[in-house]
Amino acid sequence: MRWSQMFAPTLREDPAEADAPSHRLLLRAGYVRQLTAGHYSLLPLAVRVRAKIIQIVRAEMDAVGAQEMLLPAMHPAEPWRRSGRWDLIGPELFRLRDRRGAEHALGLTHEEIFATVARELDSYRRLPQQWYQVQTKFRDEPRPKGGLLRTREFTMKDAYSFDVDGAGLDASFEAYLGAYTRIFERLGLPALACEASSGTMGGSDSTEFMCPAETGEDLVVRCPACGYAANIERATSALPAAQDGPGPAAPEPFDTPGVRTIEDLLAYGAPADRQVKTLVYVLDGAPTLVLLRGDHPLNEQKLVDATGAAGIRAAEPAEIQDALGALPGSLGAVGAALPVIADEALRGRRDMFTGANVDDVHLRGVDVERDIGVGAWADLREVAEGEACVRCGERLEVLRAIEVGHIFKLGDRYSRALGVEVLDADGRSVPVIMGSYGIGIERAMAAIVETHHDERGIVWPVAVAPFQVTVVTAQSDDAGVAAAAEEVYAGLSAAGVEVVIDDRPERAGVKFRDAELTGIPFRVTVGRRGLAEGAAEVTVRATGDTSKIALDSVVDHVRALLAG
Amino acid sequence: MRWSQMFAPTLREDPAEADAPSHRLLLRAGYVRQLTAGHYSLLPLAVRVRAKIIQIVRAEMDAVGAQEMLLPAMHPAEPWRRSGRWDLIGPELFRLRDRRGAEHALGLTHEEIFATVARELDSYRRLPQQWYQVQTKFRDEPRPKGGLLRTREFTMKDAYSFDVDGAGLDASFEAYLGAYTRIFERLGLPALACEASSGTMGGSDSTEFMCPAETGEDLVVRCPACGYAANIERATSALPAAQDGPGPAAPEPFDTPGVRTIEDLLAYGAPADRQVKTLVYVLDGAPTLVLLRGDHPLNEQKLVDATGAAGIRAAEPAEIQDALGALPGSLGAVGAALPVIADEALRGRRDMFTGANVDDVHLRGVDVERDIGVGAWADLREVAEGEACVRCGERLEVLRAIEVGHIFKLGDRYSRALGVEVLDADGRSVPVIMGSYGIGIERAMAAIVETHHDERGIVWPVAVAPFQVTVVTAQSDDAGVAAAAEEVYAGLSAAGVEVVIDDRPERAGVKFRDAELTGIPFRVTVGRRGLAEGAAEVTVRATGDTSKIALDSVVDHVRALLAG
Repeated sequence: MRWSQMFAPTLREDPAEADAPSHRLLLRAGYVRQLTAGHYSLLPLAVRVRAKIIQIVRAEMDAVGAQEMLLPAMHPAEPWRRSGRWDLIGPELFRLRDRRGAEHALGLTHEEIFATVARELDSYRRLPQQWYQVQTKFRDEPRPKGGLLRTREFTMKDAYSFDVDGAGLDASFEAYLGAYTRIFERLGLPALACEASSGTMGGSDSTEFMCPAETGEDLVVRCPACGYAANIERATSALPAAQDGPGPAAPEPFDTPGVRTIEDLLAYGAPADRQVKTLVYVLDGAPTLVLLRGDHPLNEQKLVDATGAAGIRAAEPAEIQDALGALPGSLGAVGAALPVIADEALRGRRDMFTGANVDDVHLRGVDVERDIGVGAWADLREVAEGEACVRCGERLEVLRAIEVGHIFKLGDRYSRALGVEVLDADGRSVPVIMGSYGIGIERAMAAIVETHHDERGIVWPVAVAPFQVTVVTAQSDDAGVAAAAEEVYAGLSAAGVEVVIDDRPERAGVKFRDAELTGIPFRVTVGRRGLAEGAAEVTVRATGDTSKIALDSVVDHVRALLAG
Repeated sequence: MRWSQMFAPTLREDPAEADAPSHRLLLRAGYVRQLTAGHYSLLPLAVRVRAKIIQIVRAEMDAVGAQEMLLPAMHPAEPWRRSGRWDLIGPELFRLRDRRGAEHALGLTHEEIFATVARELDSYRRLPQQWYQVQTKFRDEPRPKGGLLRTREFTMKDAYSFDVDGAGLDASFEAYLGAYTRIFERLGLPALACEASSGTMGGSDSTEFMCPAETGEDLVVRCPACGYAANIERATSALPAAQDGPGPAAPEPFDTPGVRTIEDLLAYGAPADRQVKTLVYVLDGAPTLVLLRGDHPLNEQKLVDATGAAGIRAAEPAEIQDALGALPGSLGAVGAALPVIADEALRGRRDMFTGANVDDVHLRGVDVERDIGVGAWADLREVAEGEACVRCGERLEVLRAIEVGHIFKLGDRYSRALGVEVLDADGRSVPVIMGSYGIGIERAMAAIVETHHDERGIVWPVAVAPFQVTVVTAQSDDAGVAAAAEEVYAGLSAAGVEVVIDDRPERAGVKFRDAELTGIPFRVTVGRRGLAEGAAEVTVRATGDTSKIALDSVVDHVRALLAG
């Protein structure tokens, strides 16, 4: 490829709208352009990187015996209704009607549709099956952002496993866990396998692959000692055992004029970790009390996962006043008529403080299990940096991270809903046990840039670089230099190296800047000075290291660098 | 790949819903399944064929210097409004609103969107540019049919050329004409390059690549002598010169009780080729008289192309009565107040017959140019089999055909509408001259099957076959046979042959049937009888030719067949 013909419109300035390094650099280096919010055009350099990522993903899918298919991107409503997700999923599912008025969805995932195909499996002898596709997904994000990090249209490799039982699913899941680990290694992404919430996907367990990055929208809890890692939506930590006295025989009200917060109550001799914090949430329309220790924040996804509620929101002050007769600041669950869900950290706690459901009055001496009608216990609190690892006791870290992959043990949710059954070894009809496994291709590209750039531009890992080498003609108006550069270019091309020659009639500085900005791993500079000695310069993008190499050794030198 | 693990669910019976050989065979041989009307799931065998087709298309795109991009499948309405196609294109454009109520289209082509990207081109020095993508297209077909032949969702390779002037466009167009010719040759498709209507695409010229097939939805006119070929929407033919007498000085009415048709009027001494047929069409809301020779049918697309009307339809009888005061059967344009468009074949005709716009009355002695206020002349008639070639006079053929590619000279329609301008060599801002070039990938797959099958199944050309070879273990319960077959399979795999081994515990007949049905070009059968002589059988799918080949020569023999 010749740079003079290539459409890679680099920008001299940082684009104003870019809110993440990958966004800024992919725009500036001429990889992508936004068509409209959340929809990006991939220009030639980006298409090359995308193809390399897909190639790596395909190779690892093939290695676990997965077969590639291609299922429609547009789906009839019917299978989504059968699984319940037509209603469960909100506006992020793009919906439309065709000319006859029939309802359709644009797939944001394909469990239902692969299950539809899997109905043709008839016997356990056909299992396991591993199927995947590389297909466009659509998702009506409320806030597309970060360039390719969060878009409304993207390519996903999604795989689905079909097993006759849970043991089969466990084996399939392990195989994908391994495949994903290898994929992210090959992509150069330092992804952590994290316990995760399954959200609306359902099923028993899921693992997210999380790439630590400042611009990540997720929080991951990690133990630097034992390797424990979990999304903050799922993470837990060890707490020191409580040292509660027995307290009085019944809660005792006391006046707390003007007290509105956990902090206000400290002045009354109530440390935050001896307070019961009472939140009011509306779960699928039903007001519910959510109790946590005074110093523990709620993680809303945990509340969703614990209750299975499709819609949750904090109650409005008027709703709270109606339900409890008091305003936030004096709320409490003692004697309240609403359902109560309490965080595990409150189990067994005694002699606690909480609101009395009378404005400006609190209770002391509350024994949570004795005085409160807790309907359900659950892990609801959000882990904080520095808490102790549940496995090894080490101090936990909390990191921002980008989700680059997510794999799910689905169980029989979709196969029961859609009638995917096989005869087992005993001739009984059983629902097939499914798993699903997804990687967002363009998000992976962006995550690589987030983790591989410097102040001069992108620094691609060789495995995904759009070109391995750029040959720069330092003085393109010098016929001798141009001829020598062309010879190097031809030699590298003939050796199977993916090479571009920057033959533009530009100053060397412009070419160097674009080579660095676009992140091509190796640069071969052919210029007058070196040519006088029969040599070219070979520069490594990542380190800036430059070596003078005899012209007739350039190909061998580059091949050695590529071999690594 | 092992057949025992592969998901290729072949059917014993022809599926009832299939209306074309490719539909029937792709279903039966386990290549595709319908999700809903017009949306197909491609199963593993089809994905392999699709990948090979795309690979061939990409290679030829690269050969003309085209750069691959990937533009969104979902588009904001704005560029479609700017080109006018938001309104011009009817319900076949899928439209939807996002969560904020903004309107979007699902791309059925990408002229507007590539033009949006091309705005960044600034100078003639950056031209020509050739850009392409392999992207999903959506089209809300009124009648999806024929399996992959006409779907609502399909993969298209669409390319776009950007030149500074018409001469540049001509050169780009020629390059794609050549590339497409090579692509269809490599795909084994006997495609004819035909003059075609550009429809709502606009622009000056277009060429369709038409693959003759019984199930084709298009009609192509071809001259077997000189190679003239055109879509019937565009084709013309030579007519013998008319031998009209001068006729009377003015048209003469005469009674024609009960005459309603061209044929009815024959009895009054009016041969069909001396009648003027008067049709009433409503063009963008305006009733218009359309005149043709009595024996010439109208081609509606020609009427659209001649008038530029966005919407046309035949007028209702009540509208005709209102406009002309008579019913069909006695209509005529003499003295009529409506606009008149006449077919070229009527130019200069005299002493003709036509309706008088009075029920049961006709006129004789009509001189078309003297007596009728023709507002526009155009080629409107549909060519019939056996008419004379305009180029060489030979008898024309009319063939059914499948459109497998369509290339357009667009000119400046989209660049003017969307503001794609560059500075030319004189420093003036000029609109970029565009072309566009499309191939439907899955339709090409179906067209290959339409032209490559027999009563036993598909007969893939080697270049696009999902596997080149299937190794059949004739007696899979015979350990010696199984081991020998595995050895052949391993040998072929090691030699880089794309091979599947049919290791299923099935009878040989079942395996042979599936090998033939799925259309794999070469079959190597390892069975007891041959093994006794140290040989396998190699069978050519296309011819059924079978040779006995020594086991240790099978790899070389197969490689020779593949090279051949």
